[in-house]
Amino acid sequence: MISNEQHDRMANAIRFLAMDAVEKANSGHPGLPMGAADIATVLFTKYLKFDPKNPNWPDRDRFVLSAGHGSMLLYALLYLTGYPDMTIEDIKQFRQLGSKTAGHPEFGHATGIETTTGPLGQGIANAVGMAIAERKLEQEFGSDLQDHYTYALCGDGCLMEGISHEAIALAGHLKLNKLVLFWDNNSITIDGAVSLSDSTDQIARFKAVHWNTIEVDGHDQKAISDAIEAAHKSDRPTFIACKTVIGFGAPNKAGTHKVHGSPLGAEEIAATRKALNWEAEAFDTPADVLEAWHSAGERSIQARKAWEARLASTDEAKKAEFTRRFAGQLPAGFDKAIDDYKKTLAEKPPTIATRKASEDALEVINGFLPETLGGSADLTPSNNTKTSQMTSITPTDFGGRYMHWGIREHGMAAAMNGVALHGGLIPYSGGFMIFSDYCRPSIRLAALMGIRVIHVLTHDSIGVGEDGPTHEPVEHMAALRAIPNLLMFRPADAVETAECWQLALEDGKRPSGLALTRQNLAPARTTYSAENLCAKGAYELIADDNAKVSIFASGSEVEIAVKAAADLKAKGIAVRVVSVPCFELFEDQPDDYKTAVIGTAPVKIAAEAAVRQGWDRFIGSDGAFVGMHSFGASGPAKDLFKHFGITSDAIVAAAEAKLS
Amino acid sequence: MISNEQHDRMANAIRFLAMDAVEKANSGHPGLPMGAADIATVLFTKYLKFDPKNPNWPDRDRFVLSAGHGSMLLYALLYLTGYPDMTIEDIKQFRQLGSKTAGHPEFGHATGIETTTGPLGQGIANAVGMAIAERKLEQEFGSDLQDHYTYALCGDGCLMEGISHEAIALAGHLKLNKLVLFWDNNSITIDGAVSLSDSTDQIARFKAVHWNTIEVDGHDQKAISDAIEAAHKSDRPTFIACKTVIGFGAPNKAGTHKVHGSPLGAEEIAATRKALNWEAEAFDTPADVLEAWHSAGERSIQARKAWEARLASTDEAKKAEFTRRFAGQLPAGFDKAIDDYKKTLAEKPPTIATRKASEDALEVINGFLPETLGGSADLTPSNNTKTSQMTSITPTDFGGRYMHWGIREHGMAAAMNGVALHGGLIPYSGGFMIFSDYCRPSIRLAALMGIRVIHVLTHDSIGVGEDGPTHEPVEHMAALRAIPNLLMFRPADAVETAECWQLALEDGKRPSGLALTRQNLAPARTTYSAENLCAKGAYELIADDNAKVSIFASGSEVEIAVKAAADLKAKGIAVRVVSVPCFELFEDQPDDYKTAVIGTAPVKIAAEAAVRQGWDRFIGSDGAFVGMHSFGASGPAKDLFKHFGITSDAIVAAAEAKLS
Repeated sequence: MISNEQHDRMANAIRFLAMDAVEKANSGHPGLPMGAADIATVLFTKYLKFDPKNPNWPDRDRFVLSAGHGSMLLYALLYLTGYPDMTIEDIKQFRQLGSKTAGHPEFGHATGIETTTGPLGQGIANAVGMAIAERKLEQEFGSDLQDHYTYALCGDGCLMEGISHEAIALAGHLKLNKLVLFWDNNSITIDGAVSLSDSTDQIARFKAVHWNTIEVDGHDQKAISDAIEAAHKSDRPTFIACKTVIGFGAPNKAGTHKVHGSPLGAEEIAATRKALNWEAEAFDTPADVLEAWHSAGERSIQARKAWEARLASTDEAKKAEFTRRFAGQLPAGFDKAIDDYKKTLAEKPPTIATRKASEDALEVINGFLPETLGGSADLTPSNNTKTSQMTSITPTDFGGRYMHWGIREHGMAAAMNGVALHGGLIPYSGGFMIFSDYCRPSIRLAALMGIRVIHVLTHDSIGVGEDGPTHEPVEHMAALRAIPNLLMFRPADAVETAECWQLALEDGKRPSGLALTRQNLAPARTTYSAENLCAKGAYELIADDNAKVSIFASGSEVEIAVKAAADLKAKGIAVRVVSVPCFELFEDQPDDYKTAVIGTAPVKIAAEAAVRQGWDRFIGSDGAFVGMHSFGASGPAKDLFKHFGITSDAIVAAAEAKLS
Repeated sequence: MISNEQHDRMANAIRFLAMDAVEKANSGHPGLPMGAADIATVLFTKYLKFDPKNPNWPDRDRFVLSAGHGSMLLYALLYLTGYPDMTIEDIKQFRQLGSKTAGHPEFGHATGIETTTGPLGQGIANAVGMAIAERKLEQEFGSDLQDHYTYALCGDGCLMEGISHEAIALAGHLKLNKLVLFWDNNSITIDGAVSLSDSTDQIARFKAVHWNTIEVDGHDQKAISDAIEAAHKSDRPTFIACKTVIGFGAPNKAGTHKVHGSPLGAEEIAATRKALNWEAEAFDTPADVLEAWHSAGERSIQARKAWEARLASTDEAKKAEFTRRFAGQLPAGFDKAIDDYKKTLAEKPPTIATRKASEDALEVINGFLPETLGGSADLTPSNNTKTSQMTSITPTDFGGRYMHWGIREHGMAAAMNGVALHGGLIPYSGGFMIFSDYCRPSIRLAALMGIRVIHVLTHDSIGVGEDGPTHEPVEHMAALRAIPNLLMFRPADAVETAECWQLALEDGKRPSGLALTRQNLAPARTTYSAENLCAKGAYELIADDNAKVSIFASGSEVEIAVKAAADLKAKGIAVRVVSVPCFELFEDQPDDYKTAVIGTAPVKIAAEAAVRQGWDRFIGSDGAFVGMHSFGASGPAKDLFKHFGITSDAIVAAAEAKLS
């Protein structure tokens, strides 16, 4: 145990860096770093297994600051423990354009930032995903290579958000005993006292989902220490409720919402300096304290070396596989596996729903890639996400590769982010496309972080049929395409589905969504193509250099576009058809390709069973659109397509009207 | 107490209607109606205060089927209890295009459907909103006019969804003792047993948020009845966990996920008919049973008449106010109040943030409209949603008009839907625009239902500044505009903000969102206009019939568009500026207006600090766009606008490039 005086000085080093950085930026949240400094000091000086010089060590403990507004807590810790890419200059650049020290922790800005947080509750679910990944990889590779804890720190906001319920219920169910969640219980939110809006008994709440629970004084290092040790002995995840004072140490503002999200001001900082007996200048940490922190950052060097020795002595195949998996590289031959599958499809092009085509592609993919972790938000039989290789993960056996996430889209998506961030696994999972709305914040964060998670979004239009407008996406393609850095695919048949899966898996820097039909579709691609045609986002399916009409379509509407083209051709009208499986990849292409694909036909028509928004990129504001202009309805799917006028006849009529 | 035999026959009438309707549609969910028929029978025959002939009676009890897939339960109840607009023919049209009996209950399709459900968990939060409205109106108008219960029925899915946590924590905090939630605890989900994905102790969970909890056999009418009576005596909301058998009565499929979402099949229906001793043909309810159900539907006629008598004897002013409020009509003179306020603005046009302009407008609005219920998801000082007239609602005093919703965007938005559906109040509330993602499913449902809820979405762009990309909406305008039937406003100054508020309030059939800035904006409108110019969605702010350049902009970018126009004019280039506060209202205009607004200038430029998607409607695919092409960043706002090139200089440069 570090002496109390030493502990206090180390914790105060965090507090003053946070105060100073927020003051200099004239923006930020000093309250949490000051209040949670004691918790963090105990964790980072005694328990957290980490090596700042080897920040990507696969077996390090993970630390997630779910209450991301307290970013200065994390930045101070990274600086103090000696991460080479977090200097005092970086701290001084807090919240400035181009700095590593953004307002909220941004994954990729500096090592040691395990995930992007800020939107509340996400970090809890990220941590659940990391703990799932650890447990799964420990079972697969053995505890010699994977055996670490995941710690997260959350505030009241995280616990009020619904996603926290989804995450903790799942963690409790799965008995993720290497997960430890600290609650910075400071009783303050932006509006004032927590009691203005909440009176949840958090301990009872966590017990109800089978967590180990402990209550401590969050400023008592012995109590915090004892709690962590008790957590390590638990067979369940542990919730440590830490009673803290927000802005601890600020004589006039501590314990109030005034210290939550505003600089303390020079006067209060001076008063705090006096109250905490801190002589150092702004941004200056006394040498002995910095030295003690650096020592804390070196605690795990031996553990890391021992782990490296174990890895080195692991048999070659396993070592290579472990290393490949954590490098995020697909195995050699993956392209060929997809290509071989495409050849079989060309032999007998199937008329199937793309959700079924996705299952067929996954049968190949999951056979080839042991790192896929499949799942569904309780729609396994509808999403077709479970293939023959996959058995279900259970609380007592993580040998399977399939997660029953429960009816928890948001928690699932955020946990998938955690799995991907942890490394070693590629998570994909299923839901109805309509419920992408339920997990949109987590999809957005995946895009912002640039991580490989794949969402299988089935039932992608009014093709849903009888379930009606609450279950029929009409605006979701547009809404998802609007998210930067997200690849949204809408394949037209089995071949395109396979190609889109390949692209989603091979793109290591962007998350993907696959919009898939409930209903059967005729094949659009009936001949084998060695090239992945979907890779360019849009391509000519039916060419005609003299076309008077260009029809652009995605997914299920490619079928009617092709039919309309045949009908127009029969009428003597030259027509071409462009399949548009992915807007984002199309935008990545060189201008001349894009210009050529859009073409020069005087009449441009787009068809998608969704709202028009976004399609003007292809057809211009004067093009014709065959799609949805309202919410859907309940009825047999074929009736709906007719009712809403999404038919080949409608395309033909639109073309003729424009030509006349 | 009805005899057990009679009860069983009445419950079986529900079961067979559900089985028959699903069978005929060859689609639907018989499991829940069969399993929950006993609960519903007890509630509707003994407790629910309702009058099918007066379905909109303001003091009726509300019943919400949160597990909306069990829609046939509700349709059967409406038919059996004698709602005139729910006939046996309607039941036979289950899930057919154009029928009232959609796959999931759709508000507005038939009376007695209190809300649209299907997306899980929403109904629980709707019910919380209804109970809030009841409590508030009871305190305002007295228990003579408002004194009813709100009942909801949910399944495992509803309870797994995060929104349920937000809703029940709030309900427990507020001690909504007239709220009763039944849990159809059938232990089955689509993937199989609930135990595949969840092991929550729901009783303990509800206790942790201070609910009264009761466990019963969901097929024991006496136990259900006792539980409801105990609930009525509680000073807290009550959770009644009803152990049920899904598909109760089906000899071979009951208790399995096979009966959740598929027709039973003729054979199993025949077996059920035999097992339950039911002789009637498909869709036929024995006369005595139908008679008993009709009697149940007439139970509250006296209560309704007594209520009408009390209303009649209420003093005229109060009666008129109550009636007006439930009719959803704004008071006479509201237009003038806004108009007067616009005159004061014209006298001294303020340079303020639109969030502040919204507060100023609300100061007028809340002074005039006693029915507004304000609130924020714990961002009151940032959203500027609390005006001088508003004191906070507390668990013991609903005399205030301001809700501290807590950090619960999703629960808040769904509860706001419940408040609006209940009637008598107009809910508005605040959040950061970025977190519209957290409550998007509820915003969508408000749009689908066509109800008046208003979302104040502040911090609407990179103007957020230092908080960085996790807090900066870039795709949210596009994503929200993509939702049909939602009015998304992005006003440019204080005058437009007032006009947009007026439009949001006056449109009783569409929800609204107001995207508002954090940062100050110069006034765009400096002269008084009697006309609400925002009503047309887009209008010429600076006219020039010979314009070579049209600049279209919304919100904070109108300021830079005006500046760019001045700069271009100084260079001798004729230019016009169109302010576009609302895409949806623009699309409502006649074609000639739209054509005129878009204009004939050869160069079209749009400016919005957001993604381009949607703007091609105005500028065509070859127009220039000054906006965002990626996520934002953390830094001072003025640095960010410069960094991302959203400046008047950028507009000028774009114009010159296009003209050259």
